Amino acid sequence: MKYYDSIGPNPRAVRIAMAEKGLAIPMETIDIMGGANRTPEHFARNPSGSTPALELDNGACIAEITAIIEYLEDIHPAPALIGSTPEERAETRMWVRRIDLYILEPMANGFRASEGRRMFAPRMTLVSESAAAELKAMAQEKLLWLDGLMQGRQCICGDRFTMADILLLAFVDFGAQIGQPMPSTASWLPEWQARAAARPSASA
Amino acid sequence: MKYYDSIGPNPRAVRIAMAEKGLAIPMETIDIMGGANRTPEHFARNPSGSTPALELDNGACIAEITAIIEYLEDIHPAPALIGSTPEERAETRMWVRRIDLYILEPMANGFRASEGRRMFAPRMTLVSESAAAELKAMAQEKLLWLDGLMQGRQCICGDRFTMADILLLAFVDFGAQIGQPMPSTASWLPEWQARAAARPSASA
Repeated sequence: MKYYDSIGPNPRAVRIAMAEKGLAIPMETIDIMGGANRTPEHFARNPSGSTPALELDNGACIAEITAIIEYLEDIHPAPALIGSTPEERAETRMWVRRIDLYILEPMANGFRASEGRRMFAPRMTLVSESAAAELKAMAQEKLLWLDGLMQGRQCICGDRFTMADILLLAFVDFGAQIGQPMPSTASWLPEWQARAAARPSASA
Repeated sequence: MKYYDSIGPNPRAVRIAMAEKGLAIPMETIDIMGGANRTPEHFARNPSGSTPALELDNGACIAEITAIIEYLEDIHPAPALIGSTPEERAETRMWVRRIDLYILEPMANGFRASEGRRMFAPRMTLVSESAAAELKAMAQEKLLWLDGLMQGRQCICGDRFTMADILLLAFVDFGAQIGQPMPSTASWLPEWQARAAARPSASA
């Protein structure tokens, strides 16, 4: 296996999962600022032209962070980052999709079309700057929605630290760097973030 | 188990998966046009206020269509709609996330904020109508991107009919009803749709 890594929250989410599982997978860093992810070589790995990608032993490449983390769990089940029972896995996957669709995607889309516009405009179709502002506001609203639902919980899935926490941590940290900090009225998120950031895997 | 169903592409995607697996799960239909999905009773099942939701035997409710289909596969592995090996599952999940983030979500967001505005405006924050048009255009662009990548394939994951095909079928059919038909220049999509629609499960 070989992991095609780069800067950014997406590759980091997978690195955190690898660290939680104690996996050491050979890595190659792709210079996304220099456009090395938009070359024919990388498009052959991932037709989305994004990072990360995981080259499997059969030669196939798997892209998309949740698919990569699921694959790592499939071949290295412990410690479980998705779950040890069908019910646990269902709970994790439910929260992962909510976070993915309602927070990660509008946050990233909003960033690419505003602060990130100069880098991304030559690479993909972007929404207008006003639409970017609306997407960012929706991500903020959903962060607060999550904050309300999570009161009293250690992690998103109760006491289990899961892929849902990993994705959210990578993007809450990223948001803080790109003008999308967590909402100031959030009360659970800051405490949760401190707990997640204190894990050794957070330095991945 | 009990399945909380309704009209719309999301509940249908799960029904197609159930039909492929030959599962007969007790169903209750939620009147989403009448707002029965925005009651305290349904919010207790699913704090997103959306359909569908699957009530498990342990009393927990699982929402989000991909999580529900994964759960059904977990407890009824055959026929496989995700995969029979870690590599197959990874391939399916990769395409599912691409379709989910790049096609389903902007198509649905675009619909809710334009043709669906009267129904959805009292229920959730929507983007502006101009942003909705941009999101719809991005969904169309990604449909064409997929169309180009899929040439020569029977299904999205080669010869395997998977959750990726199910999600796309439910939303391509929905798109045709709401002013977002598949792009007229698509060449693979119409043939693929005819194959998918010919399966008995498509009537679910």
